[in-house]
Amino acid sequence: MLITFEGIDGCGKTTQIELLAVYLIELGKDVLTLREPGGTEFSEKIRDLLLHSKDVLTYQSELFLFEAARVDLVAKVIKPALTEGKTVILDRFYDSTTAYQGFGRGIDLSIVKRMNELAVEGLKPNITFFLDIPLDVSYQRSNHRQPDKIERAGDEFFKRVIEGYRKIANDEPERIVSIDGSLEKQKINEKIKEIIKKSPGKF
Amino acid sequence: MLITFEGIDGCGKTTQIELLAVYLIELGKDVLTLREPGGTEFSEKIRDLLLHSKDVLTYQSELFLFEAARVDLVAKVIKPALTEGKTVILDRFYDSTTAYQGFGRGIDLSIVKRMNELAVEGLKPNITFFLDIPLDVSYQRSNHRQPDKIERAGDEFFKRVIEGYRKIANDEPERIVSIDGSLEKQKINEKIKEIIKKSPGKF
Repeated sequence: MLITFEGIDGCGKTTQIELLAVYLIELGKDVLTLREPGGTEFSEKIRDLLLHSKDVLTYQSELFLFEAARVDLVAKVIKPALTEGKTVILDRFYDSTTAYQGFGRGIDLSIVKRMNELAVEGLKPNITFFLDIPLDVSYQRSNHRQPDKIERAGDEFFKRVIEGYRKIANDEPERIVSIDGSLEKQKINEKIKEIIKKSPGKF
Repeated sequence: MLITFEGIDGCGKTTQIELLAVYLIELGKDVLTLREPGGTEFSEKIRDLLLHSKDVLTYQSELFLFEAARVDLVAKVIKPALTEGKTVILDRFYDSTTAYQGFGRGIDLSIVKRMNELAVEGLKPNITFFLDIPLDVSYQRSNHRQPDKIERAGDEFFKRVIEGYRKIANDEPERIVSIDGSLEKQKINEKIKEIIKKSPGKF
């Protein structure tokens, strides 16, 4: 079982992943939570290059690096964990690339899609929670944190990312559940648990 | 004017690039020689990850990293240099990716092609010299050097790469000139100079 969380920074992914993990562990599941990019030694190096280095990267390099990190995580950690029967919860997956590099940066969506497919080799989340918040809520909630390189990219960019996420969610309603991320966190957690309970076939 | 050199290790690219650069400089050209991956701070970091780090990478990650480094070099160095009227000589370019990651590693050639196109944004070498040598010559000539990670990949892999290069050269005879790389180095240099002289329209 692979569960992914998507949405712009400040949407509450980290909190909801923690709450869901606790719930699933109490249900007796063997839970592994991971974030993208990251989760392997190599992918953490790529994460540093992407988010914290002083190199100004082209949008295409950014895209290629996200995919390079993804392949490594999928091949070395996610697929083996799923094979062992673990429940994997991922903070961002390929929908982020479609939203940020495709819709946000304007790279041709068909090539982004093919690269995503090459990176995950057939792996698809069983369910994806998209926590939808407007841009101003993201800014308010992110206020206290030092923005990373992608977070400094500007309003118009983030508006395209949000719209992109909504289109992605619309295109795959059987996989992606959109939730209003500005709701109270316990309320969101309840919604997520309900959805998880209702999809017993997937567990 | 963009001139690229291709071929497996030991084929004599480095020597021929030096000899050609001397010739072009004496003709009064402003010459810039570069190697792939590399040529920018970011691309050199990627080069280290690809060739010298202890991480065992998947073939897909390898492909994504080569492309990430390529974009950076093209955007920051090659295109500006060409705009300034320089003659750029490149030790490896996208044909290497097609030969090594496509033919050698067996990654779908159509996705490799699309990623190459995304990385170079329309840039194409005016002329490419493919120095063709058999595998045993490569091994003899590389004997004295410490092999990097890709050089340790085995006979069958390199045979596919050589065959791949030959197919690529066959497919684009108007751009790619195949030269027997086991000839004497001065003889090869003479051939290259003749071809350069005969294509004045490109200079």
